[in-house]
Amino acid sequence: MALTDITRPSDVALNTDLYELTMAQGYWESGLVDGEGCFNVFFRDAPFKGGYGIACGMGQIADLVENFVYDDESIEYLASIQAPGGGPMFKPGFLDYLRDFRMRVDVWAIPEGEVVFAREPMVRVQGPIIDCQLIETALLNLVNFQTLVATKTARVVHAAEGHPVSDFGLRRAQGPDGGLAVARASYIGGASSTSNVLAGKIYGIPVFGTHAHSWVMSFPTELDAFRAFAASSPKNCVLLLDTYDVRQGIKNAITVAKEMEERGERLSAVRLDSGDLARLAKEARKAFDEAGLPYVKISVSNDLDEYTIQSLFAQGAPIDSFGVGTKLATCDPQPSLGGVYKLSATRETPESPWEPVIKLSEQAYKRTIPGVQHIRRYYDAAGVPVGDMIVDDSVDSGDTTSMVDVLDELTSFDLSDATPQEMLTQLVADGHHVGEPESIEVAKARCREAFMHLDPATKRFLNPQTYPVGLERGLARLRNELALEEAKGSGRRSRA
Amino acid sequence: MALTDITRPSDVALNTDLYELTMAQGYWESGLVDGEGCFNVFFRDAPFKGGYGIACGMGQIADLVENFVYDDESIEYLASIQAPGGGPMFKPGFLDYLRDFRMRVDVWAIPEGEVVFAREPMVRVQGPIIDCQLIETALLNLVNFQTLVATKTARVVHAAEGHPVSDFGLRRAQGPDGGLAVARASYIGGASSTSNVLAGKIYGIPVFGTHAHSWVMSFPTELDAFRAFAASSPKNCVLLLDTYDVRQGIKNAITVAKEMEERGERLSAVRLDSGDLARLAKEARKAFDEAGLPYVKISVSNDLDEYTIQSLFAQGAPIDSFGVGTKLATCDPQPSLGGVYKLSATRETPESPWEPVIKLSEQAYKRTIPGVQHIRRYYDAAGVPVGDMIVDDSVDSGDTTSMVDVLDELTSFDLSDATPQEMLTQLVADGHHVGEPESIEVAKARCREAFMHLDPATKRFLNPQTYPVGLERGLARLRNELALEEAKGSGRRSRA
Repeated sequence: MALTDITRPSDVALNTDLYELTMAQGYWESGLVDGEGCFNVFFRDAPFKGGYGIACGMGQIADLVENFVYDDESIEYLASIQAPGGGPMFKPGFLDYLRDFRMRVDVWAIPEGEVVFAREPMVRVQGPIIDCQLIETALLNLVNFQTLVATKTARVVHAAEGHPVSDFGLRRAQGPDGGLAVARASYIGGASSTSNVLAGKIYGIPVFGTHAHSWVMSFPTELDAFRAFAASSPKNCVLLLDTYDVRQGIKNAITVAKEMEERGERLSAVRLDSGDLARLAKEARKAFDEAGLPYVKISVSNDLDEYTIQSLFAQGAPIDSFGVGTKLATCDPQPSLGGVYKLSATRETPESPWEPVIKLSEQAYKRTIPGVQHIRRYYDAAGVPVGDMIVDDSVDSGDTTSMVDVLDELTSFDLSDATPQEMLTQLVADGHHVGEPESIEVAKARCREAFMHLDPATKRFLNPQTYPVGLERGLARLRNELALEEAKGSGRRSRA
Repeated sequence: MALTDITRPSDVALNTDLYELTMAQGYWESGLVDGEGCFNVFFRDAPFKGGYGIACGMGQIADLVENFVYDDESIEYLASIQAPGGGPMFKPGFLDYLRDFRMRVDVWAIPEGEVVFAREPMVRVQGPIIDCQLIETALLNLVNFQTLVATKTARVVHAAEGHPVSDFGLRRAQGPDGGLAVARASYIGGASSTSNVLAGKIYGIPVFGTHAHSWVMSFPTELDAFRAFAASSPKNCVLLLDTYDVRQGIKNAITVAKEMEERGERLSAVRLDSGDLARLAKEARKAFDEAGLPYVKISVSNDLDEYTIQSLFAQGAPIDSFGVGTKLATCDPQPSLGGVYKLSATRETPESPWEPVIKLSEQAYKRTIPGVQHIRRYYDAAGVPVGDMIVDDSVDSGDTTSMVDVLDELTSFDLSDATPQEMLTQLVADGHHVGEPESIEVAKARCREAFMHLDPATKRFLNPQTYPVGLERGLARLRNELALEEAKGSGRRSRA
């Protein structure tokens, strides 16, 4: 197989860090096979020094859970792994256990396309601790990157002020399904189309493209190249102007546009891919207008991101559409969301009550939030979200009108004029998909809607306002108590 | 299918930017179906402000070429794509042409694992211009990222001064085959192992892992958790110390290590994943030594890269091994190699002589190198490479002892005491694999050897010495002539 080395559906369960399997073996051997855990996926800071994230990848979680099995070939490989100290890493009894393994977890998540903020549980997984552990890596591999790309795209699309943005990133992505993830998540995040043909086929995303410099260089002259492209793609004709000299390129494009008019056709657009895009776009616009070709649009590309697009408009550049590649596909300058998966509660059996747990760190901002968490998002009368409250029902104080800041735990936020809405929806119950799979068009529409209602101060790039994310007062008290006990060494967890 | 949405071998040919297909249709329609092109993959600057790259991904190119076909389902999708101006994007005759399409290209490349420098052709593709164009995106998608990861890893491994480095990056990669690409390329670039189980299975890379904080949090106390892990993984026992309080963690680990000794077992290592790693590693080392446990190794992780590792050793941190995840898998702070694919020569038929072509730009550093290029690497008597000469045989001046700088074209490099070696080897002839596929162990060994011989001044992180890459004098003259003609507007390419 040439496109990906992943050839078997059952490779799903091997797409994991080894330690998930050694831990699973440990739980199995320690008699914790009935023990349950509650884990949350969250990020500690919004990416790109921004004020929000766009949740993405959730639409593929149920599929992941349902296909998480170990077939003979997988078991055979696991049996072959040697421990560094000698002997097989995995015991035959544990491998037998895996042979019959099916995921029995429940999964809740923020709906795909919704805005999501730092520290809150964007995905919550609960069920047998073995299952929760085994799915960790695959789940993070799925939602970390897509959430990052969707967020980056929302920023780029915001900067583009309504002008279409196309994903051109495939050649800089991490292999074929990196490219697919970029196309999928960027479409949900607001891109209008993708250059990625396979993404078009698989997800139904509109595909878009022009031609390359090499096209121009393959003909005796640039004019020959433009004429040939117009002849071959009259309904899709975008000419690339910067192979040699942009001013000559504009003249040649005007010549071809006039020839197209004589045939009853229209040159759709021109593209600029290097040089001073603001100045060249203005020159091109002026030339096309003066030539009586006001309908010829101007498209630009070349290492664009939200800042260059903002700068182009600030300079009055008359640009109609954008092709964004490298910095979308790699999420430059922050190529990782840093989403983590942390245990927040355990119980000995499915019938026992949940026991909240906390993880401390020398780095105080790494202290986790305990409990079985969900999110209440509060909206004002205009539908603008004004604060997210993280709640654990078992310690809920009943105060629905205020909460304390998730980081400093002192600042209080007043929510008395706002209306709460539960944000987590269940995707998986006992390992099985809940309801029907959602189309990415639904997620895309949800993103557009949510983004539109977001406070402009939260959306701005420079020093955005921090959106209030808080703890329900009962949960704040619980977290404090657990942290104090552990810090004093009297917490049951850190006792020797 | 849950792990990847790529389910069909014939998805290979759809893993492309749309414009490759519209250009191919254009060539087909313009009667250029016999026209040939010569394209080069290169990067303009070594990544990470460094002095070199490690070529990677080459081992998978032949497979890509051989599997590049359009089946009925692919054709059906292409037939369904509508042009923005209305009507189908692709003509039935062109789709029939694709139905019978087989790649007929020849491919040369720098061997996988070799060092490679800016501006030189790391992959050269020549053959029918349609074929060369159709494979562009997939080829860049393959070699851009793997070369970047292999380079990043070589830097990290260099900083680690012989201590093992393990790839922990799967959860931050761009999906499953992003993770596979990271594991494969980092292993070639010098990593000792990977946490990625699927990469272990597919590529035979040694897999490595410890346990997570959640393991510790799942037991009543940290000591219980350590004991349970030691009982379950006695031959692979690495204990994570920083779930609550590292000092207590050290004490608990010593307790367990002593208990293991009584059973004739040995605690292999401890891992630190947060806090001041240099200070904590020293404290841990001291404690284990004083407890008579000098064999317990210290492993660290937590957002490591070549700079943090260098800093840890500069502080005298007694660290034995490193787990490097996020910054390896995302190649932070430069998540894209920026490798491009540029046309350098054309010919009307396979029998015609090659005609060199050049691309100009307002941005002078984007000016391309013309001709059918190959690389002569010059080595001194100690086997240290001292300069790479880019050569086009058709204009070779015969001067093998000096060359001119590829960028300024004025500086001359003296190579008279050095011995040349041809660097490009043929991977594909007329669309078929040449020779036997190479194991990644061979590429890994090649990388180790090449890196060892590289001048330390080229390998250093801060202001590395620029390795001399030059043009053979005849090629430099040709490039100059073509550029001058185009700049004056008298070049046949830019004529109106």
